Amino acid sequence: MRAARYYGPRNIQVENVNVPEPAHDEVLVDIEWCGICGTDLHEYLIGPVIIPTREKPSGIKGAYLPVIMGHEFCGKISKAPPSSGLKIGQPVMVDPRIYCKSCYTCQSSNTNICTQWGFLGLGADFGGGLAESIAVRPEMCYPLPDSVSLADAAVIEPLVVGRHAIKCSGFDDFSLLSALVIGGGPVGVAVIHNLRAKGSKQIFVSEPTQRRHAHVSQIADAVFDPTKLDVGEKCRSLTNGKGVDVVFDCAGVNAGLQQGMDSLRRRGTMVNVAAWETKPILPYEEFMLKELNYKAAMSYDDLDFQETVADYLAGKFKGAETMITSRISLEDVVSKGFDELVNNKDDHVKILVTPQK
Amino acid sequence: MRAARYYGPRNIQVENVNVPEPAHDEVLVDIEWCGICGTDLHEYLIGPVIIPTREKPSGIKGAYLPVIMGHEFCGKISKAPPSSGLKIGQPVMVDPRIYCKSCYTCQSSNTNICTQWGFLGLGADFGGGLAESIAVRPEMCYPLPDSVSLADAAVIEPLVVGRHAIKCSGFDDFSLLSALVIGGGPVGVAVIHNLRAKGSKQIFVSEPTQRRHAHVSQIADAVFDPTKLDVGEKCRSLTNGKGVDVVFDCAGVNAGLQQGMDSLRRRGTMVNVAAWETKPILPYEEFMLKELNYKAAMSYDDLDFQETVADYLAGKFKGAETMITSRISLEDVVSKGFDELVNNKDDHVKILVTPQK
Repeated sequence: MRAARYYGPRNIQVENVNVPEPAHDEVLVDIEWCGICGTDLHEYLIGPVIIPTREKPSGIKGAYLPVIMGHEFCGKISKAPPSSGLKIGQPVMVDPRIYCKSCYTCQSSNTNICTQWGFLGLGADFGGGLAESIAVRPEMCYPLPDSVSLADAAVIEPLVVGRHAIKCSGFDDFSLLSALVIGGGPVGVAVIHNLRAKGSKQIFVSEPTQRRHAHVSQIADAVFDPTKLDVGEKCRSLTNGKGVDVVFDCAGVNAGLQQGMDSLRRRGTMVNVAAWETKPILPYEEFMLKELNYKAAMSYDDLDFQETVADYLAGKFKGAETMITSRISLEDVVSKGFDELVNNKDDHVKILVTPQK
Repeated sequence: MRAARYYGPRNIQVENVNVPEPAHDEVLVDIEWCGICGTDLHEYLIGPVIIPTREKPSGIKGAYLPVIMGHEFCGKISKAPPSSGLKIGQPVMVDPRIYCKSCYTCQSSNTNICTQWGFLGLGADFGGGLAESIAVRPEMCYPLPDSVSLADAAVIEPLVVGRHAIKCSGFDDFSLLSALVIGGGPVGVAVIHNLRAKGSKQIFVSEPTQRRHAHVSQIADAVFDPTKLDVGEKCRSLTNGKGVDVVFDCAGVNAGLQQGMDSLRRRGTMVNVAAWETKPILPYEEFMLKELNYKAAMSYDDLDFQETVADYLAGKFKGAETMITSRISLEDVVSKGFDELVNNKDDHVKILVTPQK
C-alpha cells in the first residue's frame, strides 16, 4: 500500500509498504481522510521530537522511525474478527492513542497522561493515518452512521483536543462565562467550537492574521487583532470591567501569555493547549495579585473522545467542517500539505489528506 | 506614643506620634507583639512597592508614607464602644486587612483579592502594628482567651497565610497526600504547620540553609538540601515512583520552580505562596507532559482567619511558636529587627517586636 513515512526533518516520503496484518483481535481500517496536525508539522520542521528513533524506541510497541505519519483519521472497516463487534464497511473515527492501562494515571482514567503514552502516526507504533490502511484495536474505533461525511469527520480529532482543554479549565457550566481564545489556528478553532457546543456566554478571540480573522469572526462573538488594540482592555470593556473568566492559549508565545493573564478576571483560569517553542515567562504580578490559575491541557482521554463523537453526531459542532481549508491526495502530502502549511500557514486552518484514488 | 514609621528604603524611624483616635464604632488595641514579615523586609530593602506614596495614595483610606509598619500583631482592647461587643482588657489577634466589601471579588467572599485590598502596616491606613496602639474596626479583632500567651500568638497571622495556601491547592483531604514545601523560611514553616494540622500523609521540605534545615527537620518528615541531592528523585523514591501530589513554593526562585515541577506527580498542583523578585520561567515540558496545575495563593480571606484562630486555640499548631527566633523591643526594631534579618537572614524564621517596656 501507499504510505507517507517520516524519516527526519523535512524528509517525509510517500512510498510502497506492506499492508499491515491485524492481530487476531484487531481490525483493519481502510483510511478515507486524515488531517495534518500542528504536531506533525513540528516533527516535519524540527523533529524527531516525539517520534521515536532506533536508539530510543517507543514505550509500549517499541517502534521507531521511519514511521507512517498522521493521527487524525477516519475510514471504513475492511477486516474484522467477530469478537470485534464491527462489520466490514462500517465507517469509523479512530482514537489514535496507545496507553499502558496499568500506570497510576491510566488506573485513575487519566489515560491522556499515561506514563508511556503515544500516538499512532507519531511513532507509538509503525502505522499511521497517512496511508491506505491501518491495523488497530476495535475499542479504538468509534462507529459513525453512513449519513456522516467522512470528508468532514476527520475534524473530530482536533475537536476532542478542544473538548479536553475546556474540561481542564475546571468550569462545567459555561452559560455564564466569558472566554478568550488566543490564536485562531486549528486548535483555537476547535476550542471555539467546543465553547459554542457548551453554550458559552461570550467567546472572544485574539488573532493577528487577517485571513484567520475572517474565519473565526464567523464563529466567535468578537475577534481582536492584538497588533492593533489592547486585548485586555477590550475584554474588560465587554465584561463590565472584570475581565474574562477563562483564557485558552492556543498560540504558545509569551506575548499571548501576557495578554491572556491581563485579560483574565481575578481568580480566572488560563489553560495552555499550545505547543511552545520557547519557555513561558509568567507575568508574575498579574498571576499573584489576581490569584490566577494556570493549567496545562495535554491530549485527551477516552471520555473526551466518546463525548465529542456523541456531540458531533448530535449536530453540536455545526460548521466545524469550515475549518478544512484544503483536501489533497496522499501523493501530494508533502508539496500541497506539509510545505503548503510551512509556506502559507496563515491561509490554512486544517488540510485533510486522502489515500483514495 | 512610640511607633516605627516607614519613610522609604532603609529608612524606618521609631518616633513619637499621636495616639490614634478611634472612630465612634472602632476599638483601640494596645499592641503587645508584632511580627516582622518578609513583605516588610522587602519594603525596607527596595520599597516602596506596596506602601503608597503621596502621589499614589492607598485605595480605600487614602493613606501614604510615612506609615506605621507591621501587620502581624496581637494586643489588648483599651477602648471599646458598647456596640463593639468587646471589653477593655480583652486579648485579641487582629486581621489587618482592609477591603472594599463592594467589588465583585468581595461580593463573592474572595476578599483576599479585593480590587482595592490593603494591609494595615503596609499603608492601607496610616496605622500599623509596630506601635503602642492602633484603632481598628471591632470585626477585625479575634478574641483570644487569657490562657493564650500573646508573646506567641502573633504567629497566627503567618499561619493564616499558610492556611490560605493549602486551600488554594484545591485539595481538601490531605491524609493520603504527599507534599513538598520549597523553602523553610517563615512562610514555608507556616505551610508545614498547616499541613500537619490537616494530617498530611508525608511532608517533605527542600531547604539549603543548615540552620533552617535543623528547624524544619523537627516538624517535617524529611528535609532535603537541594544543593546536595536531586529533590525530584528523592520525592519519587519516597512516593512509589510517582512524585508528590502538591508542592508549595515558598522560595520564589526559578531553581525551586524547576525542582518543584520535577517533583510533582502527573496532574499534580504547584501553589505559589512566594514573592518573586524575578519572573517565573516555567519548565514547559514538565508542565505540559505531566498536565500540571500552577496556582497563585494571595493573602487570605475572612474564613481563613477564622479557621486558623479556631485551630490555634484547639491546639492544632503545637510547636508553631518555635518559629519565633527572637523577641525584641520596638526601640531596637531597625538594628535587631530589619537589619538583623538582612544581615543574618538564615539565623531567623520569625522576629517578634513589642512596644511594651
